[in-house]
Amino acid sequence: WTPITRDGVMMLQREYTFKNFRQALAFTNRVGEIAEQEKHHPEITTEWGKTTVTWWTHAIDGLHRNDFIMAAKTDKVLDEDSA
Amino acid sequence: WTPITRDGVMMLQREYTFKNFRQALAFTNRVGEIAEQEKHHPEITTEWGKTTVTWWTHAIDGLHRNDFIMAAKTDKVLDEDSA
Repeated sequence: WTPITRDGVMMLQREYTFKNFRQALAFTNRVGEIAEQEKHHPEITTEWGKTTVTWWTHAIDGLHRNDFIMAAKTDKVLDEDSA
Repeated sequence: WTPITRDGVMMLQREYTFKNFRQALAFTNRVGEIAEQEKHHPEITTEWGKTTVTWWTHAIDGLHRNDFIMAAKTDKVLDEDSA
């Protein structure tokens, strides 16, 4: 995870690479599921072979402890998928 | 659709707004389906209440006629979903 700043807002971002578009989109959906479960929603960019997930907390225009927890959960989704 | 330039590459971009994250993600998946069908893949950014679709042709680092066709097909997906 890389801390980035966009329009003055700190965010956590990570790129995940995949073999094709379908796998990238499947991962996007799995991340979407945990987002709905936790009622905290990232920005997810899906491309051919790549999904980029960005977490931040709109309410505070920055990073909250919860964003780090969600980042860890996102990694866990990947582990489960490749297991 | 708005023509944008990113890193010197012309692209077609459009934002679609939705009531929540789930609807935005459902649209992302429908666009993913036509991308797979046509073997031409956009960048799709999914957020709470918003999906942003960006079409361009990697092979020519710019816009091809096919991108405009795919943009029209993307709009059609939205029409079908709200119908």
